Amino acid sequence: MPLSEFDIITRYFAQATPGREDVVLGIGDDAALIDPPAGQQLVVAIDTLVAGVHFPLDTDPYDIGWKALAVNLSDLAAMGAQSAWLTLALTLEQGDDHWLAAFSRGLADLAGQYGLQLVGGDTTRGPLTVTVQVAGYLPSGQALTREGAAPDDEIWVSGTLGDAALGLRIAQGQLQADDSVKATLCRRLNRPQPRLPLGIALRGIASSCIDISDGLLADLGHLCAAADCGAGLQYADLPLSSAAHDLIAADPALGDLPLIGGDDYELCFTAPAKRHGDIQALAAQLACPLTCIGRIEAEPGIRCFEEDGRPRPVTGQGYRHFNESN
Amino acid sequence: MPLSEFDIITRYFAQATPGREDVVLGIGDDAALIDPPAGQQLVVAIDTLVAGVHFPLDTDPYDIGWKALAVNLSDLAAMGAQSAWLTLALTLEQGDDHWLAAFSRGLADLAGQYGLQLVGGDTTRGPLTVTVQVAGYLPSGQALTREGAAPDDEIWVSGTLGDAALGLRIAQGQLQADDSVKATLCRRLNRPQPRLPLGIALRGIASSCIDISDGLLADLGHLCAAADCGAGLQYADLPLSSAAHDLIAADPALGDLPLIGGDDYELCFTAPAKRHGDIQALAAQLACPLTCIGRIEAEPGIRCFEEDGRPRPVTGQGYRHFNESN
Repeated sequence: MPLSEFDIITRYFAQATPGREDVVLGIGDDAALIDPPAGQQLVVAIDTLVAGVHFPLDTDPYDIGWKALAVNLSDLAAMGAQSAWLTLALTLEQGDDHWLAAFSRGLADLAGQYGLQLVGGDTTRGPLTVTVQVAGYLPSGQALTREGAAPDDEIWVSGTLGDAALGLRIAQGQLQADDSVKATLCRRLNRPQPRLPLGIALRGIASSCIDISDGLLADLGHLCAAADCGAGLQYADLPLSSAAHDLIAADPALGDLPLIGGDDYELCFTAPAKRHGDIQALAAQLACPLTCIGRIEAEPGIRCFEEDGRPRPVTGQGYRHFNESN
Repeated sequence: MPLSEFDIITRYFAQATPGREDVVLGIGDDAALIDPPAGQQLVVAIDTLVAGVHFPLDTDPYDIGWKALAVNLSDLAAMGAQSAWLTLALTLEQGDDHWLAAFSRGLADLAGQYGLQLVGGDTTRGPLTVTVQVAGYLPSGQALTREGAAPDDEIWVSGTLGDAALGLRIAQGQLQADDSVKATLCRRLNRPQPRLPLGIALRGIASSCIDISDGLLADLGHLCAAADCGAGLQYADLPLSSAAHDLIAADPALGDLPLIGGDDYELCFTAPAKRHGDIQALAAQLACPLTCIGRIEAEPGIRCFEEDGRPRPVTGQGYRHFNESN
């Protein structure tokens, strides 16, 4: 039986996420009503996932729900914001019970982990497209932005790089891997963990910050462009998971993926060298690996070096929408 | 040449809408940064338009841009909010220059009219889908909601009813009309004017309010359900444009459209009968027709009466997503 918009919202979403004190009126009226906390700035991000473009058509709907929220929370993390609430615009071919149950569970599980409330939404009929908008709060003036890096600042990344891009190749059958490696890397692709606690902890420490959605070179490129400077990277310092390390050792042609692979949703940030110790302490405190991979340089452009000092040429580039290379 | 996401946002949207003092950081970082005014509540609405479902594939892109924003502003109007800023998630098959220029102009023209700033967005490749989220402000506690109607409250609507539904039939070739009638009614369908000044003026006067997106009976039904009561309507009192009046006179089978036709984006609100004069004064002051069409009644259900007192049976119902009747 087809489900109406009202049925879908009531059955799958209205009670799925935790309630919040700042939400005066959630789902069910023409608009949601929020009491923003005094002295805080509102931080807002929006992102769309399209079936067949951002995920294969047969992706587990739980993962689609999870990831649609995760990629937005990653943007809040990059600003140093505390996440608060979200809205959902869901376009789907039909009101399929099994699909909706799994999708809403994926979204709600991640929302519950960070105390986000779903305050409004729209369900429409059409090709599967998921748009999530998230909002969070920040003490006024404490946002981490893309602008602010200075020459000699150190460049840091969280977690490991290239896992999601390797996971995508495995999921698409372009790359063979044993079951445990496949499970690890596909999980990195499908269930990214937004680095929200790290973003908050970096307030007052990082000079600039971005999340790595389009690949390290592309996203670090935004930090450099915003600060009108460049960067030097040590390839050997790029943090790799053991799964990625082994796959790249077996096929060096995969070696560019930590530089250009998208979808890792780690944070890339810069900080003055004198904060090196503070950042190492943060890594221990948050149990979040943080690795210094290079330095900001006055000369524009990003240069990557091998251990012996030779420049490493990099082919390809980060993910760009509307490009042939998609 | 294909356009990248960055090109699209920079070229068509970044400077298209007016700047606002409460927007600390707009398009161009991981998230937007807003300073919500003290003592105000934030009001948030989100709506999606899908090509082939909410508008024909050959719709003028200017109208798509306009309407995608208008339907959301109509939700803010129904809450009594002052509009402030918006985000846009645009999914399209390719970066077509002509289409994007017209679409962004339609969106920006309406945004400019109400001083809204576009603060963030996402452009993705896929089947044409437009999701807009708008935000506005309200003095704390003054929101108009769907809840609050009481028996004997008068029921009012703004503007005229059924125009958009007639315009859709004309646009689809199901109904013949001369050029000037066609132009008038198709404009009502494609360029709805959100009733923002009216919504603001109704703070403290209306006991409940909703915008008519799914048809009068469906939307008034939400007000009745929220207040656990019903309504009696006088069919002869429903406000019709002269174009709608003439078409219905020529074909009485169209006579249900003012009751069940969607997409008019007028406001339907209730108010105590003692505010009748205040509301008439508002109509004159805002140059916005306001018509009393009936009364709230304790008995659940909506009853519609002819001038001679006979009940008017109504076939069909308002627009529901995921229904066979779409």
